[in-house]
Amino acid sequence: MSLLHTINSPTDLRQLHRNQLPSLADELRQYVIESVSKTGGHLSSNLGTVELTIALHYVFNTPEDRLVWDVGHQTYPHKILTGRRDHMHSLRQFGGISGFPRRSESEYDTFGTAHSSTSISAALGMALAARTKGESRHAVAIIGDGSMTAGMAFEAMNNAGVYDDINMLVVLNDNDMSISPPVGALNRYLARLMSGKFYAAARNVGKSVLPQPMLELARRFEEHAKGMVVPATMFEEFGFNYIGPIDGHDLESLIPTLQNIKQLKGPQFLHVVTKKGQGYKLAEADPILYHGPGKFNPAEGIKPAATPAKKTYTQVFGDWLCDMAAADDKLVAITPAMREGSGMVEFEQRFPKRYYDVGIAEQHSVTFGAGLATEGLKPVVAIYSTFLQRAYDQLIHDVALQNLDVTFALDRAGLVGADGATHAGNYDLAYLRCIPNMVVMAPADENECRQMLTTAYHYPGPAAVRYPRGAGIGASIALELTSLELGKAAPLRNSSIDNGQGQRLAILAFGSMVHPALKAGEQLDASVVNMRFVKPIDSELIKQIAATHDAIITVEEGCTMGGAGSAVAEVLAEAGLSKPMLMLGLPDKFVDHGDPALLLAQCGLNAEGIEASIRQRFPG
Amino acid sequence: MSLLHTINSPTDLRQLHRNQLPSLADELRQYVIESVSKTGGHLSSNLGTVELTIALHYVFNTPEDRLVWDVGHQTYPHKILTGRRDHMHSLRQFGGISGFPRRSESEYDTFGTAHSSTSISAALGMALAARTKGESRHAVAIIGDGSMTAGMAFEAMNNAGVYDDINMLVVLNDNDMSISPPVGALNRYLARLMSGKFYAAARNVGKSVLPQPMLELARRFEEHAKGMVVPATMFEEFGFNYIGPIDGHDLESLIPTLQNIKQLKGPQFLHVVTKKGQGYKLAEADPILYHGPGKFNPAEGIKPAATPAKKTYTQVFGDWLCDMAAADDKLVAITPAMREGSGMVEFEQRFPKRYYDVGIAEQHSVTFGAGLATEGLKPVVAIYSTFLQRAYDQLIHDVALQNLDVTFALDRAGLVGADGATHAGNYDLAYLRCIPNMVVMAPADENECRQMLTTAYHYPGPAAVRYPRGAGIGASIALELTSLELGKAAPLRNSSIDNGQGQRLAILAFGSMVHPALKAGEQLDASVVNMRFVKPIDSELIKQIAATHDAIITVEEGCTMGGAGSAVAEVLAEAGLSKPMLMLGLPDKFVDHGDPALLLAQCGLNAEGIEASIRQRFPG
Repeated sequence: MSLLHTINSPTDLRQLHRNQLPSLADELRQYVIESVSKTGGHLSSNLGTVELTIALHYVFNTPEDRLVWDVGHQTYPHKILTGRRDHMHSLRQFGGISGFPRRSESEYDTFGTAHSSTSISAALGMALAARTKGESRHAVAIIGDGSMTAGMAFEAMNNAGVYDDINMLVVLNDNDMSISPPVGALNRYLARLMSGKFYAAARNVGKSVLPQPMLELARRFEEHAKGMVVPATMFEEFGFNYIGPIDGHDLESLIPTLQNIKQLKGPQFLHVVTKKGQGYKLAEADPILYHGPGKFNPAEGIKPAATPAKKTYTQVFGDWLCDMAAADDKLVAITPAMREGSGMVEFEQRFPKRYYDVGIAEQHSVTFGAGLATEGLKPVVAIYSTFLQRAYDQLIHDVALQNLDVTFALDRAGLVGADGATHAGNYDLAYLRCIPNMVVMAPADENECRQMLTTAYHYPGPAAVRYPRGAGIGASIALELTSLELGKAAPLRNSSIDNGQGQRLAILAFGSMVHPALKAGEQLDASVVNMRFVKPIDSELIKQIAATHDAIITVEEGCTMGGAGSAVAEVLAEAGLSKPMLMLGLPDKFVDHGDPALLLAQCGLNAEGIEASIRQRFPG
Repeated sequence: MSLLHTINSPTDLRQLHRNQLPSLADELRQYVIESVSKTGGHLSSNLGTVELTIALHYVFNTPEDRLVWDVGHQTYPHKILTGRRDHMHSLRQFGGISGFPRRSESEYDTFGTAHSSTSISAALGMALAARTKGESRHAVAIIGDGSMTAGMAFEAMNNAGVYDDINMLVVLNDNDMSISPPVGALNRYLARLMSGKFYAAARNVGKSVLPQPMLELARRFEEHAKGMVVPATMFEEFGFNYIGPIDGHDLESLIPTLQNIKQLKGPQFLHVVTKKGQGYKLAEADPILYHGPGKFNPAEGIKPAATPAKKTYTQVFGDWLCDMAAADDKLVAITPAMREGSGMVEFEQRFPKRYYDVGIAEQHSVTFGAGLATEGLKPVVAIYSTFLQRAYDQLIHDVALQNLDVTFALDRAGLVGADGATHAGNYDLAYLRCIPNMVVMAPADENECRQMLTTAYHYPGPAAVRYPRGAGIGASIALELTSLELGKAAPLRNSSIDNGQGQRLAILAFGSMVHPALKAGEQLDASVVNMRFVKPIDSELIKQIAATHDAIITVEEGCTMGGAGSAVAEVLAEAGLSKPMLMLGLPDKFVDHGDPALLLAQCGLNAEGIEASIRQRFPG
């Protein structure tokens, strides 16, 4: 690591001679592997961007020139080269550096990302701001081929393509996958572009953008291709100057090409081909396995984990999906490019014709589901809570308004741990329950999750089940596909205080907070209810509780503003009842990354925290 | 109208001889003009689709084959031909037929639309459902060139393009505009396609899709174009078979082309060129003016309206935008293709370099604004409340999480009248106030709207002002650009009941409900507060009110679930206070189209309704 340790900023990097850069790349790649093997995190994507990162910082005058990394889980080399090498051990840990770019962390992180396909929009804003201010800085968006399938990227391309006087570059990092295997017409198109790669390169001869050796190759290839009709690329049709494809691991191609592009005005598009996992054989062979590993020994690779004692909610969903599909051939399942994360690998294998991976395309996924539902099929849209934010209008306008029978399985609801605030599913209860026709449920345990999925599936309108990341409490799961009664809560514990001494308290708990609340309730001798439904909420039970208790406490793993606690308050107001209330939930701020249990404790959302909050408010 | 009156369903249409169809088109066009001139509604778009509608119903076996009309404001000819001719007088009126397709209205309305760019997703769902069920029906999406700029359309194209065994057709209705003039690279691209139209047509010779006369023309044109490089169209790159462009007002082109396409498997793309306002000279000359007129005399055309006594909120915003831009050269303004609707015509004329129409691209519009903000510019994103639903994730992830200084001007908040439930802005208070860092305001009148826009603009983070459609109360507007104190409500009236007799009531009113609430408060001798801020809400004042009143009533023109009333309940709970509360607002159902005043009255949200609800809950 003799070179890498001399690089404390891109300024240091730019003082190296070009022939030193391949050695630096080797050291950087090694550092990424060692670092991620100790902390866990994203691996394959970062091994794929080592040379690209070096080349971009070498050619562009960062941070004066702006780099916007799409999604941002490929920015570890960027972090290491921009002064955060010695912080990599704290990656994604509480108080440590983020796994994504973050404006507050470094001036080199020009735009916070984590959800896909925002980079071109942001970079265009920067490029046009520079134009407005008369600055000559460059704005560069680096976006993967998976992220290019999201419509937002096309919206930005469509907008950017008309400004012929901006200093803007889009680098398409084409590694032939999103997290799941690639899908869709665009992917096929890129593959065709790749197969004609030298010929396509030749079209840029006049522009003198490609380094000489590639031009020679291209010209020789052209001899054989005479008479062929050469399509302009799609990206040129959007008004960009297309260059490529070039080898994204070859610094001798990358650097001169970028240097040439830097001289050109107007929107530029560089197609770079990389390999996820490049340089680490195990990751090259299975980039999906090495997409986001935990800790591992780099020499041995990832070992099959011992079967964990508890199933994750994701597995509970995956099992349910297969079982329900076996029971009802109307079931079809949709994922926006999250086959693994959403637990749908087995479903795809068993029911390939009923499985739809629509690409990173949340908006489309929901309306596509609505279209299937109009014809009497029963679509299940599996989507992370945070990503459903991308399809909010489609849920309202295309599903709920038409009262169509679509089931939403919302994974990663509440705090998500290492991925941090960008991925937190904190708002779904608030943004879903205000929509007419919606049914919204949150399970207390794995078995109830299965029951709720069945309930949602049989409910003849739009219904959502939101469940947390990771494992539940280890509840045993009944194999039957049974439904719960709509809008009915489950009282779990009845306070024994019945003589007017002390306060009779009731804790109304939602989803993942039911079990911590039950523990707190036992300490406090409070009544405890598993509310099950956020909408329709069990108004009758709430009224009974209000009639027989002195105070009501609500607990949810979601924002308190507009959340399930507010729903309880609305019921009380509607019924003309007033009771002292304490609403516990996530605070009105973005919660950073860190260990999930630690974060929940910080928010007062473990058994001890709930008990303490209640004792403080209702000292008894 | 001898022919048109014999057509009570597409079955009748299909029994006509092809040479009768041009006469039918003339009658249909005339009927649309007369009908819209009496009811108001969309005109230009419907005049542009007369022949296309006839051809589609003539060739396809509707309703067995599915037509999905994107946006749907071009479906009056479709409604007239599908049994609703005699209901056109009730269009967009309370209890009458909708201005958009609606599943509950007709079996020919296969999918409800109104927001743009959903049609390809929905039609793909239908086509794949047919495949799954072994049905040979066709699914046809008809989408305008404006709607094609939204990313969602590309997401659907990307997904559809890989299914080579579906019966699916996308008709691009290329009329060279959305509501505002066309923008973006795609529009330029379509114009290039048009200019090479016959040549492009020639490429389909082998497929024998075009009728003979066009092929001859195309071949002749080809002689002159020898040696040209012919690009494959972008749509072919997405896996579609591209046919066109053809003249969308020529039934002799449309019908045989559609008949041929009907025989082809796999995703088909027909590029049809039409003219908005076709056949009505006044509308052809000014399709924007005739986009959505009120009633008018068809012989005379739309007359300039007498200057109305009251400004609309849209005008208040437009004036403010120009004044603030004149005062601060950091201001830039963004619209997703709603220059007219958002009141930005004058701004564009005066500040063309600071005006960004990004196309129908709500997602991009917000993140683009975030990008501008990172560079120290001060973007104002003008967007309808209902359309911000399209950019919810971008607001959370790209703006609020990074606490960037973006001002949101949300027009059409609350009920919107004739456009109905699809366009209602009922959910913004709920879906915005749960997001950390947001400031959310609702003005009571025009002057306050201007003050709030100034407040939002000067606030150094994300802030939204949501104001209703149409005119306010006619308040006089101070020209200064003054800010309000953040989070501070304005008490308007103090109840004089101070001796314990009767109930001392306080009405906390938000935005458009302040003035009706004030009237009700006068009748009831209740205290009345203009709350101004939904977030941060004036907790101190709420606590004072609670301490000095017997009951609290909240009133808002937004969903009560999770809305501003809940915010008040949360403050009370947080403060350990319990008070009888009545939360008035929009009900938990989708409210149909109709006269806005009538609809508000139906929801109990006029002065009389508010008074009655309060008297009922708090008699005495």
